[in-house]
Formats: sequence, structure tokens, C-alpha cells
Amino acid sequence: MKTHIITIGDEILIGSTLNTNAAFIGEKLTEKDFNVFKTSVVGDDEEVILNEFKEVYNDNDIILVTGGLGPTHDDITRKCVTKFFNTQLKLNEEILNDVKERVKKRGLELTTLVEGQALVPEIATPIRNRRGTAPGIWIEKDNKVFIAMPGVPHEMSAMIEDFVIPKLVEKFGNQNENKITIHLLTTGIPEVSLYQKLGDLNELLSGAKMAFLPSQFGVKMRLTVTGKNKEEAQNKLSEIEQLIRSRVGRYIYGKDNESIEQVVGRLLKDRCLTLATAESCTGGLISSRITNVGGSSAYFERGFVTYSNGAKVEELNIDEDLIEQYGAVSIEVARYMAEGARKVSGTDIGLAVTGIMGPTGATEDKPVGLVYIGISDEKVCTAKKFNFGDDDRLLNKDRTSQAALEMLRRNLLGIPYDE
Amino acid sequence: MKTHIITIGDEILIGSTLNTNAAFIGEKLTEKDFNVFKTSVVGDDEEVILNEFKEVYNDNDIILVTGGLGPTHDDITRKCVTKFFNTQLKLNEEILNDVKERVKKRGLELTTLVEGQALVPEIATPIRNRRGTAPGIWIEKDNKVFIAMPGVPHEMSAMIEDFVIPKLVEKFGNQNENKITIHLLTTGIPEVSLYQKLGDLNELLSGAKMAFLPSQFGVKMRLTVTGKNKEEAQNKLSEIEQLIRSRVGRYIYGKDNESIEQVVGRLLKDRCLTLATAESCTGGLISSRITNVGGSSAYFERGFVTYSNGAKVEELNIDEDLIEQYGAVSIEVARYMAEGARKVSGTDIGLAVTGIMGPTGATEDKPVGLVYIGISDEKVCTAKKFNFGDDDRLLNKDRTSQAALEMLRRNLLGIPYDE
Repeated sequence: MKTHIITIGDEILIGSTLNTNAAFIGEKLTEKDFNVFKTSVVGDDEEVILNEFKEVYNDNDIILVTGGLGPTHDDITRKCVTKFFNTQLKLNEEILNDVKERVKKRGLELTTLVEGQALVPEIATPIRNRRGTAPGIWIEKDNKVFIAMPGVPHEMSAMIEDFVIPKLVEKFGNQNENKITIHLLTTGIPEVSLYQKLGDLNELLSGAKMAFLPSQFGVKMRLTVTGKNKEEAQNKLSEIEQLIRSRVGRYIYGKDNESIEQVVGRLLKDRCLTLATAESCTGGLISSRITNVGGSSAYFERGFVTYSNGAKVEELNIDEDLIEQYGAVSIEVARYMAEGARKVSGTDIGLAVTGIMGPTGATEDKPVGLVYIGISDEKVCTAKKFNFGDDDRLLNKDRTSQAALEMLRRNLLGIPYDE
Repeated sequence: MKTHIITIGDEILIGSTLNTNAAFIGEKLTEKDFNVFKTSVVGDDEEVILNEFKEVYNDNDIILVTGGLGPTHDDITRKCVTKFFNTQLKLNEEILNDVKERVKKRGLELTTLVEGQALVPEIATPIRNRRGTAPGIWIEKDNKVFIAMPGVPHEMSAMIEDFVIPKLVEKFGNQNENKITIHLLTTGIPEVSLYQKLGDLNELLSGAKMAFLPSQFGVKMRLTVTGKNKEEAQNKLSEIEQLIRSRVGRYIYGKDNESIEQVVGRLLKDRCLTLATAESCTGGLISSRITNVGGSSAYFERGFVTYSNGAKVEELNIDEDLIEQYGAVSIEVARYMAEGARKVSGTDIGLAVTGIMGPTGATEDKPVGLVYIGISDEKVCTAKKFNFGDDDRLLNKDRTSQAALEMLRRNLLGIPYDE
């Protein structure tokens, strides 16, 4: 089943919006082993869109389109679909009811503009939209499936999960039953060091495929194994995974879509431990990531964003002279912040960061990217120095939060942070 | 100049990595008025890559490729480029020096693997890499320019800014000097209401182009004006922008790449006001966004992530009985949190949120998506109820943080939040 995703929208071409839609659809299709062969992005231009439809339709079995289905004048996808399939628009009563209900619920006015959303190409099955007014379009023709969805990410994603993926699986079945892909997620080690620690890859993989995907959060290793059937593939995969773990296991914090905040959340919950954070340079990013996990109130007690020195003194009971003596960005202050967070909150663990995120704020002996991460529990109160050495503030915040969560993970598992 | 961007990498196709590279390149090209006609993504497969090169090369004047230039086995782009242009690899001494210096600086070993990065296709000009070891490739042939760069975003972005864009402008000049695009950024109003408040678009725009780009952060309006020359375009644009502002100005918080945290940061700084936050459901996201702005320590004093009720009582001095009586998610608690944050920190303004982010935690009369945002200053202490009505935790966090920052903006500007 050759599958192609077309994203429509000038905003994607000119880079003012990230193409999260193609990524989301690609991920969901891959989970069911549909093979995404290619994706493309074109602008909001009728001729260009029709050309793209023609080219892609001939070459593929499943075509998914997002964007341009809204109520405003710049939404021309429905018109293009209608032209391409040489069909016409027809009012769909079920969709009209959906639209009316949604408008009522949000307390808006039912205008002709909004009502027009219930017009659906005659040969299509409409896809209901539980997060907006524009329905999606599902067309089966020439043994192909052509799907168009709105470009608003959360409207599209609900359609993909509720309708599109189940219906594709029903129609075509799971694809490539004999292939399995997993991601092993590492952090705190550069790509080339990881590669070298793994040793001879040909020997290690014995035919499996592996890719290294570095980012500011660490290096993902993508491993794809093919067997005569799913079971054989699974067995081969388990063997290789075990080998990899024996060589670089300490750096692997999770698997597939797991985030490190989920991993430490589970560890804290399982051990009935509670956590408080004290953040200076990350400004709340660490606590925000921790509380991205549903149910985190079971272990996350509170966080202090002690941006000013006064806040460090007043909230965390750090001695003013100590800050004066060592500077707010120092290993001593990181330790006291972690301890202060723990003691003030009465939690089992305190995690703290202080650093210089840039682009300004550096001094002669304290460069941008310098960070100290402290951790305090019943037994130890320690801190570690990092130097992320980049001039990009947001990248440094991401790296700092990731390193802090990894330090917490290793603390919980008793893995030393240094080699 | 027809321009096409090809992104190479299975990780993009299967959605495990977002295509930030194509967005970045698209943005930088658009700034210089190069017209990005189409972008595409293909996997790490030699045959597929060569086919894509062929198809795209014929149809375009400028071709930009990212991905697959690294040192590991899964990087095959350089090989494909060499084949496609029927050339061969040759050691480049300048690049070899760069590679050696970089390896030395990072304290790594100079392996054959790393040294091999200095091999460059003979007909190409190498593009130096100041953030990594893999050089880029610049080829001019058949009146076309073909450019290949590494997929690691910060390596690619440095090449684009240092070398690629300046050289393209030098070669082709700025394109379409007579066209200007701006984005007006709104929040707190649905797309359809904004559209209606603008009135007759044909009359308003008189030939200019406008697009509406909704997301959880609000609706961007993209406005493109063409004139006989840049000056005429600028004059037309100013006129239209003024008309738009007269109709929906209160909802417009910023322009182009401005974030709302930059806007409120500037307002706070200009007025010498200080801010403290108290967050429950957003877990630190608001303070993290505020401190994403360089220099925010001038106005951001501290933040409280009072996740537990105990933290609300102890850190913000809220009466325990009050939480008992109204519940932690209530308009009363939001008000007292804002006031507590302000008084405890001694700042001019306190901003607070409490709500239910989901997917669990709802009660019969308090659904997921219910949020109260409180704000306290010298004169007022008020809170407002929001219902984001979605079951997605991260979306609800984004929306809540955006609404809180917008409430702060309107407070600073004296714009009432309600209609």
C-alpha cells in the first residue's frame, strides 16, 4: 500500500507554521505498518493543488490531504477535491446537525458561512469533526482511498484516531506483519560516542536496520527488524535489544514515545516518593514537563521558580552571604536550592537548577550554557556541572531540563551520572 | 526562481521527528522573497532519493536538500549526490582541517569515520560547518543551484545563515521586490468571529491576499500585498493594516514572529513593573514562557508552582477553609492565588491559574478544560472563568498559558477582557 501525505498551506511552505500534521499522520500510519512513501507540501493555489492531486493519485494507493477545509475564503481544498473527482457539493443533514450543535455549545451565531460547512462532495463519505465545524472527506475510487481533513491539528488528529486509522485497517488490514520498529531513547551521551560504544554494528544488527536521531534531548536509536513473521521478528528484536542494552543500557531512559518525565514519574509513583523543584534558569520548564504527565499530582508536590536572588533567599532559605560569596550560578547554590526545595516542601526529593541560558548574562569565568544541577534526598545532597556551550536560550533550556530529569532518573535507579 | 526543498530521513516520514528544517529554510528564503514552490520528504533509500533528485531537478531552479550527511552508516545523501551528478569524492584539505580542529576541541578521537567527512564531490564547493563535522555541498550546473546540508537543525541553520542565503542573494538578487507579507497575531477570539468582525474582505483587502491560521494559541492573519514597487506595496499594506486594527485591534497582541511573552515583557519593562506567578494546573508553563524571553529577570521576580493544596496554603497564604469551601479550582482561589503571589513576592502584579487539564480529574460540575485565571495589582484583584472543553492535557495547558498572558496584556493596556 503506497501512501502519500499532502499538506496544503502557504504557512507551511514559508515556514511560519511547522508541519506537525504530516508528522502525526506518519506516526499513526507507521504504528499500523502502513508505509508512508513520501510527503509533500504545496501552497494555497488551485492549479498547484490540482496538479499535485493528479501526480500523487496516479502513484499511490492511499492519499491523505490536510488543510484548506475551513470556513474562510482562503480554504479551497474542498473545491479542488470536487473538481478533481468531477463531482458536486451536496448538503449533508448529519453534518449540518453536528455544525448546529457545535455552534450552539460555543454560544456562537449560526451564519450561512458556518452552515456551508455541511456541504460535502457527493461521492464522499463525510468524516465527523468533534473539535470543529469542518467535516473531513473520505473517497473510495479506483481501488484507492483519498482522504481530506482540516489543517487545524487537534481537529485532524481526532479524525485520524476516531475514523481514518480504524477504517484503513478495516479495509486493508495491518500491513507488513513481519516488520517491527522500536526506538530506544538515550540522553547524556553524544551520537558518535554512542556509536563507538555499540561496537561493530554489522555484527550487532545481523541484518536489522538502525538509525541514529540526535536532538537537544538526546539520541534516539531507531531499530527495524524484519522476520519471516511477526513472532520471528519479535524474537530477533529482543535479542538485539538485549545486546544494545548490555553495551549502552545506562544511557537508555525509555522506549518509543515515552518521555523522560513519564519515566521518572513512574519511578516516583512506584516508590511512593514525592518531589519538589527549584528552578532558576529554566523558569519553570522542569516542573511544567513533570506535570505534563497525567496524575503527576501523586508525586509532584510543588515547584519554586526562584528567578531573583531574593526569591532564593526567601523561598528556599538560602543564606544571602552564600549567594554573595559563590554567585547564584554555582555548585554550592545548586546544592542549597535542592535541599531548600526538599525541606521547605517536606518532600522526599528536591531537584534544582541554576545557570546562564544566554544569549546575554555571561561573565568572564561563567560562559553562556554553564549550568549546575543539584539533587537532594534523605541520604545525599549533590550537584553537577554542565556546559551546554550554545548561544541559543531555548535550546539551553531544553538541554538543562532534560539533564535535570536524567539526573533524577539516575538518582532513583542508583546509576552514577559520571562514567 | 522556482525553489524546492527536499528533506531526507525516515524519521520525518514516520513522524518521530518534526520537519523543522524545511520550515526554517522556507522562512529564510521567503524573507529574501525567494518563492518556495513545493517541499517534499523522502526516506533513506538510494533509489527513492535519486528518483526524487531527478524529478525535482528538472522542474526547479534552486534545490535545497537536508539530511543524510552525517558520519554513520545510515547517511547516504553524499553518495546519492555524487551518483546523480556523475562525479566522484575528493579529499578537501580545508574541510579536513575544520574536522580536525572540531574533534580536538570536543576532546574526541580522530577516527577514519570522522576523517571521511572531508571527502567532497569533485564538482561541488563545500560549505563549512561551524557546529559539526559534516560539510554541506553547493553545486552550480545547468543554470541551477543544488545545495545539500546536514539534517542536524543547528548545523544546517548556521550554513543557511552564514553561506547559503547570502550566496543565493548574491547570485540571483532579492526576488519580487514589490511584495510584502506580514502576520497579525490575535488570541482570545475564534476564527469565524474574527472573520465576521472584519466585514467585507474584498472591500477591505482591495486585491491584497489574506489567510487565517488558527491554532491553540490564537488565529494568525497573514496579509500579502503586491504593488508596483516596494514603496507602493508598503503604503497599501499600512492602509489595510490600519483598517484591520480599527475593526479587531483589541485582539491583536503582536506581529510576525513576536510571541505574547515578548509583548507582555516589553510592556512590563517599559512601565518598570514586576510580576510574580502562581500556577496550579499549568505547572510552571507560564513562568517558563515568560522567562523564554532574554532579559526577563528585569520584570519577572519569581513563580510558585503550587500543585498541592498544601503548597497553596503555605506558599501563598491562602486560607485552608477557603479551599475546602470553594474547591481548589474556583474563581475565589484563583483570585487569592494571584493576590498571594503578588503580596508574598512584593511585586506589582500577581498572575494565577487553577484548572482541570485532564484527561482525568473532572467532577460533575467541574469538567476537564475548566480554568480560572486570576490577576491582582494595586487596584484590582479579579478572576475570569474559561472553558477550553478539550480532553487533551497539553493543548489545555497551552491554551491556559496563552489566555493568562493575554489577560495580563489586556490588564496592562486597560483593554477589558469581556466584550
